[in-house]
Amino acid sequence: MFSGAQVSLYPMTDDFVGVILKAITALEPYRPDFRIETDDVSTLLVGPPDQLFPAMRDLFVTAAGSGVHCVLAATVSRGCPGEPDDPICTPINDVHYGQPLEERIAAAIQQVEAAPKTGQIVAAQFSLYPLGSGHHMDEIYGCIEFLKNSGVFDRSKNFCTKLRGDAGAVFATLSEAFLRFGAPQGHVALDLKVSANSPTAV
Amino acid sequence: MFSGAQVSLYPMTDDFVGVILKAITALEPYRPDFRIETDDVSTLLVGPPDQLFPAMRDLFVTAAGSGVHCVLAATVSRGCPGEPDDPICTPINDVHYGQPLEERIAAAIQQVEAAPKTGQIVAAQFSLYPLGSGHHMDEIYGCIEFLKNSGVFDRSKNFCTKLRGDAGAVFATLSEAFLRFGAPQGHVALDLKVSANSPTAV
Repeated sequence: MFSGAQVSLYPMTDDFVGVILKAITALEPYRPDFRIETDDVSTLLVGPPDQLFPAMRDLFVTAAGSGVHCVLAATVSRGCPGEPDDPICTPINDVHYGQPLEERIAAAIQQVEAAPKTGQIVAAQFSLYPLGSGHHMDEIYGCIEFLKNSGVFDRSKNFCTKLRGDAGAVFATLSEAFLRFGAPQGHVALDLKVSANSPTAV
Repeated sequence: MFSGAQVSLYPMTDDFVGVILKAITALEPYRPDFRIETDDVSTLLVGPPDQLFPAMRDLFVTAAGSGVHCVLAATVSRGCPGEPDDPICTPINDVHYGQPLEERIAAAIQQVEAAPKTGQIVAAQFSLYPLGSGHHMDEIYGCIEFLKNSGVFDRSKNFCTKLRGDAGAVFATLSEAFLRFGAPQGHVALDLKVSANSPTAV
């Protein structure tokens, strides 16, 4: 299994470099468990699939704490058959995801309820792509059922689902969607945008 | 068939609202052919699949013309089985995409060579997801062969491919990747970021 994300942070301010550099310090606790590489478009995180969303949460909450309108965009992936297995991608927490859809939905809701509060309200928009399977829409519909019961469901949009709420519950919901839907060892990709401090937020 | 995109524009400046409002005027010529809806996270474009990338190119080149560091992020989709067919999504140009992989690669290269120049250099990073098919990696590898011969290939990264060059050729390459790979009537999604004027571009 190979898992990771290409992550970008967009602070809508003249001082975007300062906001990004400060936010990156929030990744320090994750560095021992991840391979991290940056270029002009994104930062690659390769590491345990269950730590990806906590790392992105801490990065984003730090950036949003500046008060400026910020967006985090990420392409998250696990199980891509074009990437070699990597021991760094072993989950840190024990995960049992090979259950029937109904049990996975219930377990995911429980995890979101237990998520820590951050005090930062965010809007998130994402699409989940279970690849290489003939039943990808079953997994997507199962995931949507979980999302509607997550407590942070905002609405379904064309091509994606929108969440809104505390960053703790929102990133926990995203993590559960990524880890529990699609085949356990299958190829799953997730396309994500998270926004805070937008002047047009409703 | 249903096709469209959720598009966001991120100008890294205090005047991000001004840059976005000016860039949106570049969509005027496309309005008769598209359904366009905006909220605080993204703008939905629903319309002809072959006009999506030209519309995003004109939007982005206008924003980048401000000189500030700008990013466009988009989730592009066609053939999603969860969306109803819509006559507005009929291609404007005649398209014949049901050909063998080798012929599609050659035709895509020809289209990119014929793309208009814009004078704006951009970096783009994207992932293509042909969904619901057992052969999704064949289509991805075929698409990568096209990209390597597109003239704007920068490099393969984990989870995505990076392009660099004139916005005309880059958006034409993205459009060909989206339209010609994956089954002609199949569900294909594309996750895209395009960046201009980055202070860290190499």
